Amino acid sequence: MVVARLASMPTLPRGLHETVRRALEEDLGSAGDVTSVSLLRPEDRCTARLEARADGVVAGLPVAERVFLAVDPSVGFEPELRDGDRVADGQALARLEGPARAVLGGERVALNFLTHLSGIATLTRRYVDACAGTESMVLCTRKTLPGLRSLERYAVLCGGGALHRAGLYDGILIKDNHVALAGGVAEAVRRARARAPHTLRVQVEVETLAQVDEALAAGADAVLLDNADVDTVKRAADMVGDVPLEVSGGMTLEMTAEVAGAAKLLISVGRITHSAPALDISMEIEP
Amino acid sequence: MVVARLASMPTLPRGLHETVRRALEEDLGSAGDVTSVSLLRPEDRCTARLEARADGVVAGLPVAERVFLAVDPSVGFEPELRDGDRVADGQALARLEGPARAVLGGERVALNFLTHLSGIATLTRRYVDACAGTESMVLCTRKTLPGLRSLERYAVLCGGGALHRAGLYDGILIKDNHVALAGGVAEAVRRARARAPHTLRVQVEVETLAQVDEALAAGADAVLLDNADVDTVKRAADMVGDVPLEVSGGMTLEMTAEVAGAAKLLISVGRITHSAPALDISMEIEP
Amino acid sequence: MVVARLASMPTLPRGLHETVRRALEEDLGSAGDVTSVSLLRPEDRCTARLEARADGVVAGLPVAERVFLAVDPSVGFEPELRDGDRVADGQALARLEGPARAVLGGERVALNFLTHLSGIATLTRRYVDACAGTESMVLCTRKTLPGLRSLERYAVLCGGGALHRAGLYDGILIKDNHVALAGGVAEAVRRARARAPHTLRVQVEVETLAQVDEALAAGADAVLLDNADVDTVKRAADMVGDVPLEVSGGMTLEMTAEVAGAAKLLISVGRITHSAPALDISMEIEP
Amino acid sequence: MVVARLASMPTLPRGLHETVRRALEEDLGSAGDVTSVSLLRPEDRCTARLEARADGVVAGLPVAERVFLAVDPSVGFEPELRDGDRVADGQALARLEGPARAVLGGERVALNFLTHLSGIATLTRRYVDACAGTESMVLCTRKTLPGLRSLERYAVLCGGGALHRAGLYDGILIKDNHVALAGGVAEAVRRARARAPHTLRVQVEVETLAQVDEALAAGADAVLLDNADVDTVKRAADMVGDVPLEVSGGMTLEMTAEVAGAAKLLISVGRITHSAPALDISMEIEP
Amino acid sequence: MVVARLASMPTLPRGLHETVRRALEEDLGSAGDVTSVSLLRPEDRCTARLEARADGVVAGLPVAERVFLAVDPSVGFEPELRDGDRVADGQALARLEGPARAVLGGERVALNFLTHLSGIATLTRRYVDACAGTESMVLCTRKTLPGLRSLERYAVLCGGGALHRAGLYDGILIKDNHVALAGGVAEAVRRARARAPHTLRVQVEVETLAQVDEALAAGADAVLLDNADVDTVKRAADMVGDVPLEVSGGMTLEMTAEVAGAAKLLISVGRITHSAPALDISMEIEP
Amino acid sequence: MVVARLASMPTLPRGLHETVRRALEEDLGSAGDVTSVSLLRPEDRCTARLEARADGVVAGLPVAERVFLAVDPSVGFEPELRDGDRVADGQALARLEGPARAVLGGERVALNFLTHLSGIATLTRRYVDACAGTESMVLCTRKTLPGLRSLERYAVLCGGGALHRAGLYDGILIKDNHVALAGGVAEAVRRARARAPHTLRVQVEVETLAQVDEALAAGADAVLLDNADVDTVKRAADMVGDVPLEVSGGMTLEMTAEVAGAAKLLISVGRITHSAPALDISMEIEP
Repeated sequence: MVVARLASMPTLPRGLHETVRRALEEDLGSAGDVTSVSLLRPEDRCTARLEARADGVVAGLPVAERVFLAVDPSVGFEPELRDGDRVADGQALARLEGPARAVLGGERVALNFLTHLSGIATLTRRYVDACAGTESMVLCTRKTLPGLRSLERYAVLCGGGALHRAGLYDGILIKDNHVALAGGVAEAVRRARARAPHTLRVQVEVETLAQVDEALAAGADAVLLDNADVDTVKRAADMVGDVPLEVSGGMTLEMTAEVAGAAKLLISVGRITHSAPALDISMEIEP
Repeated sequence: MVVARLASMPTLPRGLHETVRRALEEDLGSAGDVTSVSLLRPEDRCTARLEARADGVVAGLPVAERVFLAVDPSVGFEPELRDGDRVADGQALARLEGPARAVLGGERVALNFLTHLSGIATLTRRYVDACAGTESMVLCTRKTLPGLRSLERYAVLCGGGALHRAGLYDGILIKDNHVALAGGVAEAVRRARARAPHTLRVQVEVETLAQVDEALAAGADAVLLDNADVDTVKRAADMVGDVPLEVSGGMTLEMTAEVAGAAKLLISVGRITHSAPALDISMEIEP
Repeated sequence: MVVARLASMPTLPRGLHETVRRALEEDLGSAGDVTSVSLLRPEDRCTARLEARADGVVAGLPVAERVFLAVDPSVGFEPELRDGDRVADGQALARLEGPARAVLGGERVALNFLTHLSGIATLTRRYVDACAGTESMVLCTRKTLPGLRSLERYAVLCGGGALHRAGLYDGILIKDNHVALAGGVAEAVRRARARAPHTLRVQVEVETLAQVDEALAAGADAVLLDNADVDTVKRAADMVGDVPLEVSGGMTLEMTAEVAGAAKLLISVGRITHSAPALDISMEIEP
Repeated sequence: MVVARLASMPTLPRGLHETVRRALEEDLGSAGDVTSVSLLRPEDRCTARLEARADGVVAGLPVAERVFLAVDPSVGFEPELRDGDRVADGQALARLEGPARAVLGGERVALNFLTHLSGIATLTRRYVDACAGTESMVLCTRKTLPGLRSLERYAVLCGGGALHRAGLYDGILIKDNHVALAGGVAEAVRRARARAPHTLRVQVEVETLAQVDEALAAGADAVLLDNADVDTVKRAADMVGDVPLEVSGGMTLEMTAEVAGAAKLLISVGRITHSAPALDISMEIEP
Repeated sequence: MVVARLASMPTLPRGLHETVRRALEEDLGSAGDVTSVSLLRPEDRCTARLEARADGVVAGLPVAERVFLAVDPSVGFEPELRDGDRVADGQALARLEGPARAVLGGERVALNFLTHLSGIATLTRRYVDACAGTESMVLCTRKTLPGLRSLERYAVLCGGGALHRAGLYDGILIKDNHVALAGGVAEAVRRARARAPHTLRVQVEVETLAQVDEALAAGADAVLLDNADVDTVKRAADMVGDVPLEVSGGMTLEMTAEVAGAAKLLISVGRITHSAPALDISMEIEP
Repeated sequence: MVVARLASMPTLPRGLHETVRRALEEDLGSAGDVTSVSLLRPEDRCTARLEARADGVVAGLPVAERVFLAVDPSVGFEPELRDGDRVADGQALARLEGPARAVLGGERVALNFLTHLSGIATLTRRYVDACAGTESMVLCTRKTLPGLRSLERYAVLCGGGALHRAGLYDGILIKDNHVALAGGVAEAVRRARARAPHTLRVQVEVETLAQVDEALAAGADAVLLDNADVDTVKRAADMVGDVPLEVSGGMTLEMTAEVAGAAKLLISVGRITHSAPALDISMEIEP
């Protein structure tokens, strides 16, 4: 069922332990799972499987595992797939065995991570597939859900996407608002080149071909072309040469497919992180 | 433009300060907004407005305000609407004035909160509207994004929805997996009534009318009927009398509208928190 | 010496690691145990026993163990009893072996947990014993020492007591102050039933039989009768039927014994957590 | 009503903000005070008074104030007494005015601090009064409740008591277990004098007059005489001269009164912190 | 006395509040300043001045202010200079007025920040002065003291220096160890260009002119020449054209002066952060 | 090569885990080591050695080990020396083996700890050597770098030095500013003896022999003589008898050597912690 695997597994983000702890705190509070404690004895055990209820791409299995282990280190968690793999409706993602209170107590938090991250990987993969056969890449943006950025970027990698800057600190990206305040594309690029650390490229957002010209003349290291049609993108690509060209702005799957072949582009899509629907996954106790 | 306001503003969750701090940490790291620092002087100021790019319901304006104030307490933030209000495409939500570095430095984090929470309020409101003229209510579930549950529940209230339990600790909800492990609906309800704190109602998930009967006979304080058709819901409603009846399971807007008039129901919808698309909102620097 | 054991061990609270860490921080600061470091070499070892100096019920042995392990993971800790067991004056609770600096460095913090929690379990057990042969139960309240509530509730369970709500969030309890502000028992109950999550029972505090009537008529799910004499309690019990009836208010052991047989009651006692004297336990180095 | 005030107010401990935050977290969780939110509107206000239900000494009023302010900074809190003052049954300690939800939401946590700390101050004062007319002082020990040591030491000062070391780090106190492991009183004192920082006095616990002699000969800077009768204490006091002499061990009020006049002693009493019953204080909503 | 001021004040790092809190925790613990509490009454006040005992450049005055305010918000702190200013032996940096316990209690922590950061600014300024009249700049490195990097980078800016990357995350710098593992300069640069985010420049460390050639041919965005003599630096500068050229490796003040004029260089100096001696500053109570 | 080892290894400070975590957070942020991730595959491994580039005394090897293990627990770290040992230029301190990304990702943070702490140990040892053959000891002060005090005190012990008080809480040290505010040496000492806990010695700073007299007469337990010449120190030593005499104030190595033989002194040196240059140590990948 697995068609193609990622060449190299992305690294789980640092600080995951704390993110998992916080999510469990949210669901268990200090009083814990009163239902399971009322119904089950400490020594009751069970086996269960995590199962997809729709086709998609998996992301977050190691996170789910850590959730269950954080509830009770004696839970056994056996993944049947690995992150980045495609999964089909009805297919098992993992099997668990352990104290029933822990398996049920960790279920919802584990699934909340897994369905959200797999939802992102699934949507990312659809965008990546729309670029198949081209040199263009799909990038995530900083439009992520607060507190989950590192994990969401991980999920984007699982879906075959690529990374833009992680925050405001690891890249110079001069947006339209900066241009307005700095008094033009050229002046903004010049200031950035003069004052920013030499370790960061200077990228500038433009809306017209004239501005592409202005950006290149001022020494921009990369260009972001916002809301352009395919023809404009093609002409911009001809202008930039080796300078990276990113396109963004309401990128539907259709527009992505259309533009991807026009040139070697960085196609950034906010929607894959801020609006990806959860992938439906559930946990079933096995008899 | 504002049609109807919430009777009473929901309370912002405790711990918001820490959630905001963490989100800013994600975006600013320790090196901060290198673009704005490179382009703008500390004394540069600007005005800006937050503006909707689609129709919806607003949630998160006080959160956005706290983001900007956390970046720089001298930023002025004037909301034009309040949470729970409807907003139209092109309408302003708030105006800002302050140091340009702070306004631009807080923009993305503020919008990430605001677009996500407004997305939830907007989708919730669509479900609530689908119940208009009936006695049924729309409830959120525990299918929330890790670390954001309290804020997402706040957004559900802004959309006119109601709350289910906040976690595993403030309600007994015997799910199908519990029933399987406890050996049946009646036995599970009996155990819960005997062992759970007397402050919590005992609710049980069932799938058939026979199980509704069994649950009531065992003394269930509330019933959750999963994946039932309208006719079954009606018959269950006749059986339960004053006992609260909740329905759930893949509730589309159409199914919600259909079932809402059948009885006084609690309609719980995971999708309003786990899969609500962001409401498009942007920040514009004013000349 | 052990007469009867708890049917099921209560679960240690989540977050215990942090509570232990904080307690050690309080006693060791950053400079540590200067006495032991001055007197003993790193390689010095010792054996010791924890020993009761009075009769009582044990609670907190796993907490004590975690204290010593947090000081030095190589300390060996062998409990001779388990939490919930009765202990007699002079009896050993546990034996330790390990680096002398760690055993002496952890002694006071371990004993501070153990003597406090065992004090609570011991007093709780006296109340539970006062109810022997009746259907009534002893409950703890929210009158706990700040920062120690979860552990104190654990100790109450070790003493054979039962739990009331864990906080303001997992139960509706309308107290006299609420009644005063809401304008009467009936109105308060009605508001709570209309607005509170359906997962929580609505309990109301009353002082007269007329108020019991009013509460039941308004649909209260449970009643708390404050400061009533035995006769009033009996009459209230006749009125409530299956609705849980809690009594509270200056419950001495004598009053508890007297009232416990009057009906199936929930007897809540603040004193078992806010004023339980420590059980005297000491650590002896063995030659 | 106030008879005598402390010459100088003790300082509230550092880190109090965090202790208060943690206590509120315990009681409010993330879902908050569901009862008050169900019954009261955000704009409802009330006045209330904190009132003693028994005679005692007050400690913790500024802590209670901080609790209410942490719930809602708009609460007005007017103390009628100050920490260290005596209070009589029925007397008001403070008056509050503010949003009813905040006043009721902070009530229990505020009272849990106030009744515990006042309980300690009250019991301490009884010990201090038992020493009236003598040169002896009452000291607390490290037998405190985990997480509350600094506040409990503050309460001891409010009761007129004095402080021993704050932890294992700010004093050398060679206990019987150390003596056993080090091979005698003299050897232990010698090692400590050789190796401990010169900023700390070397105190040693002894049980006989011969050991007092041995300790002094070895250069002890202070002596702790454990479990001695009055006559032995007197003779030890004659021996030590200017060297501080501390007595401890099951100090009841009677024994304290008896021994206090025998010499200028440091009388350390674990019971004032580990077993002080709460002082009964309640909050009454005013009409 | 002030010769020249920085054109623009660097921004204090985020998270400073926590760094100050931690430093005070280190010095005050939970027992606080026992000396001042023993000697001074709460109402005693004093005035004091911070005074240089050597010539240098000031950095950290706002940090010192925050230390005193964290001890007691009523302390008045009036700076006489601002960060980045030169100061002469004997000159006042700031005056304080407030409760004597707070002024003395915060003294050491405030001075520990101020003397360390001023030491860094002073040494940085000496390097910057050694480049006077040239186009070369002095950069700090990642050789900072653990936990103090952001503040130390701030001090470097106060001294007139410039910033390199803040961590491993905001720049690609291929060091000799990377080259060894990747199989050569060209291969390493190619991999980085292919796989790193497009927002980061790719810089590579080289030791020979042949490697400079190889780096440029492979598309390096910047070159770090390690341990080269002036002549080699000059020839490398001729080769790189507009590509930034950084030099490093045991840069003494003499070598810096010699090399600075050779080309427009980035001169990175670990010593300004890891080995800058403290600038001698003391606090004097004024009569 | 190892000449002499410390008789007993000092204990690593508590809380080290958190200090290491914070330092890694500083260098890795949430985006991590982008260079190594770009160049190396997850499965690439390497061996490396930590090597001194100057003569000195080692401190911090277990800290460096924890850094690498915190990056990846599968890294193997084999120390060739132990803390407190002398090391020669070119000599290996430790060898590592493990995933190349982890070895390179932890390198800088590990070295930042190791070079700083070894720098302190090295300078301390030079002071200790200057006292060779005398009874005098070298002490560190509270002039430490914020956040690093415990580790720096550990490094001082590794260098053969001794400890003064850890903070303001574990010793009474009346400085000149206190004397000024308290109205003289005698009055200050009297107040401290009357009010400070009996567990702390009362030490007072003086500048003249007359003040030494005054301090002793008032009952000072220790004397700190500031900025005195050798002759004055000798005469003070004659006066104090068994009372500890500390000297401080701009102690160069030369002055230390001169004064050390004059009496049995405590020589406190701020410079060993606030201004010790880093010991040059680097990591070399082995082929």
